[in-house]
Amino acid sequence: MKNNQTASTLPIHRYRPYHEQFAIELTDRTWPSKHITSAPRWCAVDLRDGNQSLIDPMSPERKRIMFDLLVRMGYKEIEVGFPSASQTDFDFVRSLIDENAIPDDVTIQVLTQAREHLIKRTYESITGAKQAIVHFYNSTSILQREVVFREDKQGIIDLALFGARLCKQMEATIPGTTIYYEYSPESFTGTELDFAVDITNQVVEILAPTPERKVIVNLPATVEMATPNVYADSIEWMSRHLTQRENILISLHPHNDRGTAIAAAELGYLAGADRIEGCLFGNGERTGNVDLVALGVNLFTQGIDPQIDFSNIDEIKRTAEYCNQLPVPERNPWAGDLVFTAFSGSHQDAIKKGFEAMDADAAKQGCTVNDLVWAVPYLPIDPKDLGRSYEAVIRVNSQSGKGGVAYLLKTDHALDLPRKLQIEFSGVVQAKTDAEGGEVTSEQIWDIFNDEYLPATIKNPEAKWGRFELHSTRTSSDLSGTVDLAVELRDGDTVAPATGSGNGPINAFLGVMAERGIAITLYDYVEHALSAGGDAQAAAYVELDVNGKRYWGVGIDADISTASLKSVVSAVNRGIRAEVDDLELAAV
Amino acid sequence: MKNNQTASTLPIHRYRPYHEQFAIELTDRTWPSKHITSAPRWCAVDLRDGNQSLIDPMSPERKRIMFDLLVRMGYKEIEVGFPSASQTDFDFVRSLIDENAIPDDVTIQVLTQAREHLIKRTYESITGAKQAIVHFYNSTSILQREVVFREDKQGIIDLALFGARLCKQMEATIPGTTIYYEYSPESFTGTELDFAVDITNQVVEILAPTPERKVIVNLPATVEMATPNVYADSIEWMSRHLTQRENILISLHPHNDRGTAIAAAELGYLAGADRIEGCLFGNGERTGNVDLVALGVNLFTQGIDPQIDFSNIDEIKRTAEYCNQLPVPERNPWAGDLVFTAFSGSHQDAIKKGFEAMDADAAKQGCTVNDLVWAVPYLPIDPKDLGRSYEAVIRVNSQSGKGGVAYLLKTDHALDLPRKLQIEFSGVVQAKTDAEGGEVTSEQIWDIFNDEYLPATIKNPEAKWGRFELHSTRTSSDLSGTVDLAVELRDGDTVAPATGSGNGPINAFLGVMAERGIAITLYDYVEHALSAGGDAQAAAYVELDVNGKRYWGVGIDADISTASLKSVVSAVNRGIRAEVDDLELAAV
Repeated sequence: MKNNQTASTLPIHRYRPYHEQFAIELTDRTWPSKHITSAPRWCAVDLRDGNQSLIDPMSPERKRIMFDLLVRMGYKEIEVGFPSASQTDFDFVRSLIDENAIPDDVTIQVLTQAREHLIKRTYESITGAKQAIVHFYNSTSILQREVVFREDKQGIIDLALFGARLCKQMEATIPGTTIYYEYSPESFTGTELDFAVDITNQVVEILAPTPERKVIVNLPATVEMATPNVYADSIEWMSRHLTQRENILISLHPHNDRGTAIAAAELGYLAGADRIEGCLFGNGERTGNVDLVALGVNLFTQGIDPQIDFSNIDEIKRTAEYCNQLPVPERNPWAGDLVFTAFSGSHQDAIKKGFEAMDADAAKQGCTVNDLVWAVPYLPIDPKDLGRSYEAVIRVNSQSGKGGVAYLLKTDHALDLPRKLQIEFSGVVQAKTDAEGGEVTSEQIWDIFNDEYLPATIKNPEAKWGRFELHSTRTSSDLSGTVDLAVELRDGDTVAPATGSGNGPINAFLGVMAERGIAITLYDYVEHALSAGGDAQAAAYVELDVNGKRYWGVGIDADISTASLKSVVSAVNRGIRAEVDDLELAAV
Repeated sequence: MKNNQTASTLPIHRYRPYHEQFAIELTDRTWPSKHITSAPRWCAVDLRDGNQSLIDPMSPERKRIMFDLLVRMGYKEIEVGFPSASQTDFDFVRSLIDENAIPDDVTIQVLTQAREHLIKRTYESITGAKQAIVHFYNSTSILQREVVFREDKQGIIDLALFGARLCKQMEATIPGTTIYYEYSPESFTGTELDFAVDITNQVVEILAPTPERKVIVNLPATVEMATPNVYADSIEWMSRHLTQRENILISLHPHNDRGTAIAAAELGYLAGADRIEGCLFGNGERTGNVDLVALGVNLFTQGIDPQIDFSNIDEIKRTAEYCNQLPVPERNPWAGDLVFTAFSGSHQDAIKKGFEAMDADAAKQGCTVNDLVWAVPYLPIDPKDLGRSYEAVIRVNSQSGKGGVAYLLKTDHALDLPRKLQIEFSGVVQAKTDAEGGEVTSEQIWDIFNDEYLPATIKNPEAKWGRFELHSTRTSSDLSGTVDLAVELRDGDTVAPATGSGNGPINAFLGVMAERGIAITLYDYVEHALSAGGDAQAAAYVELDVNGKRYWGVGIDADISTASLKSVVSAVNRGIRAEVDDLELAAV
């Protein structure tokens, strides 16, 4: 099988492979054999990295709503701004402190470049906080050293060490606040590893951390430049080469340029990181920061507590959308509108069976479904565990097979169609929807179902298309094994009485039909109540061979016997209609 | 630094770690040390997996537009539908064949379950095609075997082998069509590896492939259930254990439930796969299929030709949005509206310097920027190489620093502000926008700039807020090193002549100012033409110490000498205004 792909005209000469620019040799890496067993420390940077990348940055009111949401969800480290770069940010940090909005167990974090006037302003901003993380950074990448700072390595190191020393000095100005430090060699993914570890080790030495007061070393994928395994390698390498590793929390800050930030965070965490910075739903510069919701729920699906409350993901989504003024995409993991939707019939069928199996299993074990390990095909999580539902988002369209249709009939009308009837009816729905296109509502399905199987019985008494109609039934049995049946039957325009006998009413009725030239063989029969209680209606389903072809019929009546006879009439009428259609086609 | 995170109330007991359910032991994995060096075979499944998951499935017209787009982009294998499951799909496949819409080097692919009537209908659908891939599948996962099919392993194998044999038989019914096969053990990620390889080996044996006519073995992450390195391990394991590996193309089909489908595809490709199935912009069931655009452009950024034309990514996006009736999210890699936007001032500044460095480099090398390796901070690709632009999407808001503002002034008004003036002016913009919030347009920035530095000179002759205004200038020089300056100067409401001397006009003018009680020290002076040609205007920038404080001034005039004097007036006026403001504040 030949590969017919041909060269494009894209200017590939303008780009070089990452591994030719940065040598990350870690043949003895250990992370690919590890498993995640507990949540990392999270740091939500929605109010800084997220906010600075919005078309319409948050107003103070929206910022406060976001802050309160993050606190409510359980985030304990929250980067609240870049107060030295913006008066708005400064004022917001002050408002949090002055209004006592920061719970005792929450630590705010403020970003600053490692420059004198910015650092001083930063300490001003946090005066009065119980504790705070001062996060200072300078860019260390080859490209930024050359193009932006025009400094050699020592110049860049001097800049970082100046910042670190000034931070330590500034502590004395706010003695009431416990200060922790975070240092970022910004654009880490564009930095030679040996330089990154060198500058970081020197900074850490000045910050003089202890095991009780660790320093956070944040290794950002400021720009995501390679596959996520390479980032993981770089994290494991750094973890091995940081001299005061025991006094350090390694923090990840992946951006999503290549669309692999979630993977980079997970693999980097396997590789030895302690902490992850990101934003709800992946807001942030360009393609965004890593998505904290995806990371958290991913843990949850592995039986690991993310230590964050995702039990009402819709509220989280609504709030974030309000604050960011940006929608969460339809297919965003765990939160998008479409992620618990199955359109495909085979998927819907499997999901339905998964739900049923869980119900049966729970009944058998005498527990509720909520006690069982989740096991439903195509749904990696119970939507209910995130405050969502599968039902709420199921849609049926012309691509759907039996499952979706059947599911809606069961949910909305208590009809539990036999599997083969599901298949037959899905063909009926598909024929209609293929012709018209678009999504089919539950109501439309119900209309199609009525018109096909229950003409003139429920929704529209006048819409009678069938040759036969049952007007009354009377059965009598002497318990000898024979049932006598008397019916009043419309046959075309004529209503007349008819009688028959058999081992049951259906059998007796088949005789009545046979007298009218309809040859019927019964293949399948199912009946169930539509609800609990003695006055409940029953639904009967029969599969008949009508003059040589198979048809399902449906009957609904409070009398289970009448319901079954109606189902026979339903199937017979459908068979006759099909024969007429065939005859008409043949005559053309 | 204590970790204050606490347990959530999420029902983690309902979920089990993947590695406890599926043992994938591959301690000698080789993929993490490999590099991608060429494009995989691509298969676009937008018309099948993508279409079946749309709220509003594509009409025949939209399907054809999507098909033509995929062909135009360079995809050579295109899954065009599930013709046995839907009349619409069947008709569409027929229309492609009957209307000769399929280029000779493009192979259509049709999906079918491994069931008799579906397979037969599938061969009907492709009659007359030059070649086609028949893609048959059955679900092999533990969960689906138990819950959906209620079959043991042998029952599932029998089902697959039945399908394979029937497919081979059906070939005779369409002798004019070259048939290739693809087999998917569907829900592969929920299947024990030894069972997946067993069933696949048996299917492959029946299909009897050769090196010239390989069979595609597609290993779908039907549901993404683990970190992407685990998927890669499973691919490498399968690649080692498939008995006819030389006759097989291993294909990946990652879904994005955990948000790591792109990573799964890339790591799986490193692990030995030959081919990747996905959709443009990650359309597809639930969270979507893997994003083919992201995968392709990711290769491009590594200097690897994706063999797909992404040179007009906006047109691709617009077309996909029309066909899918779903928007491509703002932060979608490479294609979202915001991905080449930098809001942060430091980012914008670095980007500006990157552009300038590339321009300078090109000038030095006597080539164009398009011949150079791309190297601009925060932009992992030249937006132009995808038919986009950085300029088109730059926005300035209250979070922006000097870069964005400076960039717009340069682009829209040819003003190349000195770095320190950029910093000063970004503070001015920030003060205004912090107060008002929201995005600032280029026009608003220009208004702010005029009001601050050029009152009464360009936009609004009546809006004069400065104490001084230059009405005329005359300089004379006898080339002895002394310049005599005569000006007509408005000082408050009075216009009067004034003269001075110095080694240049600025120096002379400082003397004029000194006579009026303004003590000035000159710190910096830059001037440049606003365009080419003798009649061009010039812009002058001065940094002055005005009565003890530093201010920048700007002057624009066709006469470079007058422009420089105007810049002094600008700075002096600003200094005086600030003094007045300070006095007024003191008086309160």
